[in-house]
This record gives sequence, C-alpha cells and structure tokens, in this order.
Amino acid sequence: MPRRKMTPAAAARYKAGLAHALEAGYEVLRRGNSLDAVCAAVVALEDSPLFNAGRGACYNTDEKHELDASVMDGATLRAGAVAAVSRIRNPVLAARAVMEKSRHVLLAGRGAERFARAHGLELVPDSYFATQSRLAALRKKLVGHHGTVGAVARDANGNLAAATSTGGYTGKLPGRIGDSPIIGAGNYADNACAVSGTGLGEAFIRGVLAYDVAARMRYLGEPLAKAARAAMRKLAGLQGDGGLIAVDHRGNIVMPFNSEGMYRAAIDRKGRRTIAIY
Amino acid sequence: MPRRKMTPAAAARYKAGLAHALEAGYEVLRRGNSLDAVCAAVVALEDSPLFNAGRGACYNTDEKHELDASVMDGATLRAGAVAAVSRIRNPVLAARAVMEKSRHVLLAGRGAERFARAHGLELVPDSYFATQSRLAALRKKLVGHHGTVGAVARDANGNLAAATSTGGYTGKLPGRIGDSPIIGAGNYADNACAVSGTGLGEAFIRGVLAYDVAARMRYLGEPLAKAARAAMRKLAGLQGDGGLIAVDHRGNIVMPFNSEGMYRAAIDRKGRRTIAIY
Repeated sequence: MPRRKMTPAAAARYKAGLAHALEAGYEVLRRGNSLDAVCAAVVALEDSPLFNAGRGACYNTDEKHELDASVMDGATLRAGAVAAVSRIRNPVLAARAVMEKSRHVLLAGRGAERFARAHGLELVPDSYFATQSRLAALRKKLVGHHGTVGAVARDANGNLAAATSTGGYTGKLPGRIGDSPIIGAGNYADNACAVSGTGLGEAFIRGVLAYDVAARMRYLGEPLAKAARAAMRKLAGLQGDGGLIAVDHRGNIVMPFNSEGMYRAAIDRKGRRTIAIY
Repeated sequence: MPRRKMTPAAAARYKAGLAHALEAGYEVLRRGNSLDAVCAAVVALEDSPLFNAGRGACYNTDEKHELDASVMDGATLRAGAVAAVSRIRNPVLAARAVMEKSRHVLLAGRGAERFARAHGLELVPDSYFATQSRLAALRKKLVGHHGTVGAVARDANGNLAAATSTGGYTGKLPGRIGDSPIIGAGNYADNACAVSGTGLGEAFIRGVLAYDVAARMRYLGEPLAKAARAAMRKLAGLQGDGGLIAVDHRGNIVMPFNSEGMYRAAIDRKGRRTIAIY
C-alpha cells in the first residue's frame, strides 16, 4: 500500500500481523529447526487476510485464486513447491509435503490438490480465500498489485531454510505461475544463505535472483549484504520492483527492496526485533 | 535406451531423427536468429514420436500426458514457458508465445492451453500424443524412464538462445512439473552461454543447474567446458543422472552427460556435424 494511503490504524494492523508471524516462527525456532520455523511463520501469514498469500490472496482475471508456494531446506538442498492451487488452505504445508512425501519438487493445479488431500492437508472451498478488498482491486483494474510472503531462518545448528508463498498478482492470467514456487527464482536455501523474494515474479525468474545471491556469495566470496544489493540491481535492470529477505550462515540478516515499501520483520542473533513497512 | 537393448536399426532411426532436427535448426540459423533456430529444432523433436516431448511423450500415473517446455532469449533475457499442458501440439511454440505475447513467463495447465488457443497455436486431442511403447512402459511399471529434448544455438550476431521440451517421466504424478519449464534449472540463456538440460528434473531444480553453468562462467571466469563439468558433478552429488547441451558466446559446444547415453547432435562453427547416442 502506498505510504500516502497508509493510515496509522492500517499500519498498526499490518505490524501486528507481522509480529504475530515473527513470534510464531521464533517460538518454533527456539525449540526446533529452521525448516519448521519458516513454515510456522508463513502459515501465520497465509492465515492472515492482510497478506497476499493463502487467505487474502489476489484474484486472477477469472476472479479466482491460484496460489503458489515453496520451501527449501538448506542443510540437504531438498525442496518442495506447489503452483496454481486453489483449494489448499496452507500452500506452504503442501509444498513441504511434496518435499518430504513425494519424489517430486513441484506439483501444480488439481494434481497438487489431490496430493495434498491424500497427505491429510486441509482443503477449503473457494469462499475461504475471498476478500472484498482484493475483489474490488480486480474489478477496478488495479492490475499489477502484488505481494508475497516469505520467511528465512538460521537455527542453532547452523541450518538454514526458506519458505515463500503468494497469491500472485491481481489480474494475472489463469495458470500463471510466478517466482515463488520456482527454486532459484523466488526461493533458495543452502547452508550459506537462505533467500525469499517478493516483487515482480517474472523478473525474479528471468534473473534467477534468489540463487544469484547464493552464487555471488559462493563464487565471488561476497558477503550476504553485497550479494543481495547486486541482486537488487539486477532486478532493477530487468525492470522489476520488489525486494528480498535473506539470512546467512552467521545469522546476518538483510531485507533490501526497491519498491516504496516492504512489510518486514526480523529477530537477530541477540533477540532484537525489527518490524517495518517503508 | 540402454546400449545392450539398442539395435542397429533403432540407432539408425534415432540418428535420423536427430539429423532431421539438427538440419531444421541449422537451416533457420543460416538465414535467421538463434531463437528461431532452437524453436525449429525442438519442434522437429516434439513432432517425432521417438523422443519424449510432444508426440511420443511419457505417460503419468493417470495414463495422461502433461508436457513442459520453455524458451529463453539470451540477448534480452526474455523467457517463456508452459507446464503440465495436455493439448498443445508444440509446447515450445506455446512457451515462445508466452514470452512474446504475455506479461508472464510461465503458464500452466488449462490456463496455458486457453492462452495458446487464443494465440492461434494448434491444439490436438489426447490421442495425438499416444504411443504404444510409452503406454506399455507405464503399465510395466518402468517408472523413472525419462528424457527431454532441447536445443541451444549461437547466431551470426552473437546472440544465444535455448529451448527445452519434455513429457517428463513415465509414472510421474499428475501435476508434476519438472525442470524443463523452470528458467535456471533445465533451461537458461544469456549472451555468454545457453544451456538446456536433460535428466532427473528434480535434481536439476534443486541444483539450479542451467544457471549454475552461467554463474560459474561469469563469477569464476571458468570456460564453458569447465563450468559444465562442475554442473555435472553437482548433478551427481544430488543423486541425479542426465546431461546438458550448451554453447558459449564464441560458439564452443559441450554436451556432457553422466547417464549411459544421451541422444545428441551438433554443428560447430566450421559446419562439422556430430551425431551420437552413447
């Protein structure tokens, strides 16, 4: 939401939503691992109607919701994703099920939903995803309004993980898959860095941006912040706006963006919390 | 096909199919650009029932065909892809239409088919993709038999392009999307190198293998052959088999693989032809 349209009350709601997801992830991280933590944080964001993932997702040109999500485990390079799913309450959990319970990385559409159902995930009717403000955005032709939720974490064992989930953007074509379920584009984790992206998905895909951060760290020896800045320059060169959140093996955190704002929150090594919008 | 099962007659048929696609691409390349050339070569391979793409594609567990394809233009970093499509005769042409006629990079399923129809591409009935040998493979539980077709080219202007197309693998789950339509995984092109992969798609996705070749060349300064060998080692480390074809800005060609064979063909700068299976 542009800063000029943001009211104090709305900003407070968004920050409360961010804080809730942050604490949900942190609570798991303190007792468990990074993979569980990023999933817990993303589930909280999917369940909130404020964010464009799960409940509250954008509408496509058919006035339907098609959701994308992925997860990657930095310790093992395992990954799972779902794309263009319309009936799975928490796409990130379906992505994790694909990772853990199939031989595949990416399942789409009805096949993904059938898989999710077979593995006990909650399916919901279309109406679950409906929000008046998102529908109004479509009907007012506010095409291009986008957003993505994501989480990255490093746990006490030094293992990293990343999760990303989105409804895409208002007015996308049916069947459009963005960068969020694409390993390397909108999501990537190894044990040197974990990255989740938000913004114009097509530019993230063309620039292979999430993996590019990891590649620059590994091959150029760049620190995370420098590699992330370079990825943001590449994004701008592809006429893309957006941002990313990333953490490295030492627990350094970066959250750069070239859009007007990016809803973001973090807890660092010392337990210091950051919650910000612009 | 394992070497011990390959007959001289079958080898001759495969080599003729490769030669036909090679000449189809080369004919276009002599008069035109690399993007047109890789599409022409891949169309020829999709139209041949011998190869696992378009006609002749593998069956999934529902005894259906779901096809993936992508194309990337190295000069502009534009890309297009379709995934899990069942009615488009030439998925690579639909991928190109997504690149040139939409704001998206990747469309899947029915939405992709609707888009293809709207842009004048030929749709075909299920029966078009049917082949007895592939169906027999599924029913004999020959799960895991895979293959992909692809083409890379450098044109006289120094522009590179890559195209990849596949039916996935026998016995895949409905909705499974492999690496072929994933930019960075099974397909990547900039004007330093163009890469198309074949093999266990899940490993190509997790390793972001096609882009990894480009990243190593750019960031480590490695020549194409060395970067491609490193990608093959990474593939093996991910328990993946397969191979890739790649060309660099100077027209150097590499076609490494760690599987028993890889149907492959090339024409180099001097017009010398290579056609080989093992």
